[in-house]
Amino acid sequence: MFYYAIDLLGTFAFAISGVLTAMNKRLDPFGIFIIAFVTALGGGTIRDVIIGVQPVTWLVNPMYFYTIIIAVFFAFFFREKLKYLRTSLFLFDTLGIGLYTVVGVEKGLAAGLIPLMCITLGTVTACFGGVIRDILCNEIPLIFNGTIYATPCVIGGISYFILKYFNVESDIIFMVPIIVVIVIRLLAVRYNITLPNIYKTKAS
Amino acid sequence: MFYYAIDLLGTFAFAISGVLTAMNKRLDPFGIFIIAFVTALGGGTIRDVIIGVQPVTWLVNPMYFYTIIIAVFFAFFFREKLKYLRTSLFLFDTLGIGLYTVVGVEKGLAAGLIPLMCITLGTVTACFGGVIRDILCNEIPLIFNGTIYATPCVIGGISYFILKYFNVESDIIFMVPIIVVIVIRLLAVRYNITLPNIYKTKAS
Amino acid sequence: MFYYAIDLLGTFAFAISGVLTAMNKRLDPFGIFIIAFVTALGGGTIRDVIIGVQPVTWLVNPMYFYTIIIAVFFAFFFREKLKYLRTSLFLFDTLGIGLYTVVGVEKGLAAGLIPLMCITLGTVTACFGGVIRDILCNEIPLIFNGTIYATPCVIGGISYFILKYFNVESDIIFMVPIIVVIVIRLLAVRYNITLPNIYKTKAS
Repeated sequence: MFYYAIDLLGTFAFAISGVLTAMNKRLDPFGIFIIAFVTALGGGTIRDVIIGVQPVTWLVNPMYFYTIIIAVFFAFFFREKLKYLRTSLFLFDTLGIGLYTVVGVEKGLAAGLIPLMCITLGTVTACFGGVIRDILCNEIPLIFNGTIYATPCVIGGISYFILKYFNVESDIIFMVPIIVVIVIRLLAVRYNITLPNIYKTKAS
Repeated sequence: MFYYAIDLLGTFAFAISGVLTAMNKRLDPFGIFIIAFVTALGGGTIRDVIIGVQPVTWLVNPMYFYTIIIAVFFAFFFREKLKYLRTSLFLFDTLGIGLYTVVGVEKGLAAGLIPLMCITLGTVTACFGGVIRDILCNEIPLIFNGTIYATPCVIGGISYFILKYFNVESDIIFMVPIIVVIVIRLLAVRYNITLPNIYKTKAS
Repeated sequence: MFYYAIDLLGTFAFAISGVLTAMNKRLDPFGIFIIAFVTALGGGTIRDVIIGVQPVTWLVNPMYFYTIIIAVFFAFFFREKLKYLRTSLFLFDTLGIGLYTVVGVEKGLAAGLIPLMCITLGTVTACFGGVIRDILCNEIPLIFNGTIYATPCVIGGISYFILKYFNVESDIIFMVPIIVVIVIRLLAVRYNITLPNIYKTKAS
């Protein structure tokens, strides 16, 4: 129940990030809804489809759909005030990628995949909604420009299997990686850490 | 048989819209064919994959493939004259989205999904081919800029379930939503209605 | 065993082509890896998903993943020298599309599809990784601009079924189309042949 609440909070935060990107591109109301939708559910959809979990999760459980509709209306009516909510939204989003990572890992395990592939699926679940959002808005995906976004997911996924290897209790195996993802992301943002720039000169 | 004919006419019209967009971008013959293909079959492919209907429809029934090949040659040879056919093509396209909507709704029902998800699938079937077309051509999807395109599909889908609720005969349940989609789209185009502009100033 | 080696060589070459495109766009290390990954495995993933082979191949066999990681490190450390390796990489890539074409055709046959669809799947396997690479990098797909890239795959696929029709031995049915793809591509590059330009004037 607690995790389900986090899941929907994450969906809410992802949807709002989609709305903001779409409004920035001045899309129409329908376009805004679609971008909110793919941002929130795109990663999980790719995960379900490549594993073979069909119909995909959101087709079977309409709560995700309702959450996104509420998020779109919320973002629309409070759009002038969203800047004051930036911190809350960032926290929801960070909670969301933490939870999405673990959900992805566990779906991989349920499909009988090896840890490497489970971690990949966790990262896809957490990050690829944003990738599709940026493609639909005709931008190079934001997470490819040095932001620490996928890295915490990968490390969180690794921590999951370290705990599992030591036969830690399953509640803790679920919770700790989420905290790992959140802490790494918060530290990265707080201390303004980015992935190393591998190019000799800055892009102009 | 009658519906099958409409289906192929819709495929034909979608394919031609793909050819025109691709030629506008000066793509090579192979690129033109691919864009025609994804415009006509992309929406149905996404629908089939997220429900779990595999192999997807066009892999099993080659008539769609043949129709697209014919459409590409037709569009290529008559490219100078397509402007005179614009009204016919628009009517085929409108027939197409009407039919695709109902086909999508019924595939959702066959998969045991709730009405909300069936309507979503109908809209995806009708609209997402055009979305993929625009992404491949490196444009922000056309249907996100205020055109009344997805809205008729949503309303048509709703009308399907209203008729179903009242236990109307199945032929009518199939036909009326198609007409609803067509009428709304024609009215929107005729009276130049767009989705409300939610931004204070016009995009420059 | 021999084919498996070619398969991994092709994956290696595709991954490096992804790295080069991504570095050209100045993406971060994570972005470079993702682009390498989708370039190498995107076509096969689409093929598996539309046929219904799930979990998709690379989730089940981690060798592809490892090959891509090695390719990314290789490309990164030898990036100054890759221009001297251009010919080798081009040959690997050409081997790769030859093999991917035949692998795609055979997966289609295994799913009970007709030759036309098998050839389509072969071409998708060989070419669509590059299409996704270009979309993620916000470019119109390279193979839509006249390069002879998909054409050899289509002809190679046709040659497969001609040999099959004459009941040629299965090893030869597998090998000859790969050689057909390679020879056509090499000839096209050697003699600078492109698809016909169907536009009256050159694009400016």
